[in-house]
Amino acid sequence: MTFAQTLGRRAEQIDAELANLFVSGAAAATPSRLREAMRHALLGGGKRVRPFLVVESAGLFGAPFEQASAAAAAVECIHCYSLAHDDLPAMDNDETRRGRPTVWKAFDDWTAILAGDGLLTLAFEILAAPPAHPDATVRAELALLLARASGPAGMVGGQALDLAWEKLEQSGQATADQVRELQAMKTGALITCACEMGAVVGGADEDGRRALRTYGNALGFAFQIADDLLDAEGDPAKTGKAVAKDQALGKATLVELWGAARCRDLLAQLQDECRAALDPFGAKAATLIAAAEFVANRDR
Amino acid sequence: MTFAQTLGRRAEQIDAELANLFVSGAAAATPSRLREAMRHALLGGGKRVRPFLVVESAGLFGAPFEQASAAAAAVECIHCYSLAHDDLPAMDNDETRRGRPTVWKAFDDWTAILAGDGLLTLAFEILAAPPAHPDATVRAELALLLARASGPAGMVGGQALDLAWEKLEQSGQATADQVRELQAMKTGALITCACEMGAVVGGADEDGRRALRTYGNALGFAFQIADDLLDAEGDPAKTGKAVAKDQALGKATLVELWGAARCRDLLAQLQDECRAALDPFGAKAATLIAAAEFVANRDR
Repeated sequence: MTFAQTLGRRAEQIDAELANLFVSGAAAATPSRLREAMRHALLGGGKRVRPFLVVESAGLFGAPFEQASAAAAAVECIHCYSLAHDDLPAMDNDETRRGRPTVWKAFDDWTAILAGDGLLTLAFEILAAPPAHPDATVRAELALLLARASGPAGMVGGQALDLAWEKLEQSGQATADQVRELQAMKTGALITCACEMGAVVGGADEDGRRALRTYGNALGFAFQIADDLLDAEGDPAKTGKAVAKDQALGKATLVELWGAARCRDLLAQLQDECRAALDPFGAKAATLIAAAEFVANRDR
Repeated sequence: MTFAQTLGRRAEQIDAELANLFVSGAAAATPSRLREAMRHALLGGGKRVRPFLVVESAGLFGAPFEQASAAAAAVECIHCYSLAHDDLPAMDNDETRRGRPTVWKAFDDWTAILAGDGLLTLAFEILAAPPAHPDATVRAELALLLARASGPAGMVGGQALDLAWEKLEQSGQATADQVRELQAMKTGALITCACEMGAVVGGADEDGRRALRTYGNALGFAFQIADDLLDAEGDPAKTGKAVAKDQALGKATLVELWGAARCRDLLAQLQDECRAALDPFGAKAATLIAAAEFVANRDR
């Protein structure tokens, strides 16, 4: 089985878990229009990279899919709420995503805002409820990790920095350090969090958690650089979105600041960091190491 | 000390707790513009009724302010995020609140959306972190109660129902049952939750929790009816907002459907329910009973 097949099979499992939230899960009692908008935001395809990382990281410590699926679903709720809000006309003003209309385009702005709020809240309902894990200490720890990574000092803060650069016509060009900080908050924090949440679900000790954090940090950075390279050079027929959008917006990327060649070198170095972090786990870590290669080499 | 003075003194304690979130608390590392917008949303005055209910309910079971303050702050973060989002042009399009510009008016739409997202996430970070309560089971339970009350089957769902009536030009007038359901979700759920969270902080047994839920349900209903009466008949110089706004929007209220006289009778009945629910607590419940009277008789 290729890595893409492994990822695809996990995505099917995750999709089933997410769809079930609206059937017998925490979102079953949602009023109809809001429920449809939340479903649109959550069930619109996507590679499910973050939940995959939760599940595979938990697996490193012996936890089966069923034990990690709630944490995985919660992370994807956060990711999808952030897309629904980021796509809004008041934010990035995107009309399509993954070849489908964005939530505000398919419904309207107020419905997209509330669908995002609903998914965000749902993530914490999933984590706090006993089915997520029998040990309340684990549930509280998962909620804390996710809130920190996705909140004002994490993902939301990164998006605020990003939009401030874009919309407030700040003078001068962003420095590489500023771009790095922004990306680490906006994209990296949630990816690292997914890996560490998996470790927590699996009952990892502090060494284990640290290894997964190190892996997650390198992977998240690689993910962002690959994304920027794709945006600068990718094939729109494959990525399904307009290429050079970041450049058109004047948004600074490391590719722009450092050039593509240096970024490709950095990608290789980050893959080495991913491998080194997981070295103590031996062959069990093969899937997560393949994930790092996949992220670095993806063409869409 | 009158009840208004008691409430005011608690509000000062809560305000200090909320302000500290941005100094040494969970929101200290927030990027500056986002932080200012979150502060604007959270520290804009208000009676702090919901955190008051958390603190007083916890006090019924012997928990001092310090033990209840984190849960109280989390509930107020949720309330204030919902105001920041509800005020947006895409939602209720309100420019002032409590005599100040709303968040989107003071900043802009995208900042207000992210400030709301930040406060929502912050609420769960506060509850999940060990300072909220030494027992992780209590922390997880608090997060679960708050997520259910404020999520798609609670507050967010109620706002979605409300805006659907207003914006989608549904045919016909809402029935009293529909108005009741909408209000119970949009306003009542968080008020009931505040009371029950206090009970949980205080280590209440199931009987104690049920008593506070019953009290909270009656109080939340009373709060909404008093609000509707104020909206229909209040003095704009006192309430600080345009009167008859609901009526102008064609939004159904129980005052409209049942008439003011019947609603005033219902208010008196709900006060009786509040008193009856807290009867087992004797004189200790005096402040919460005074709260029910205050809510029913407020003129702003």
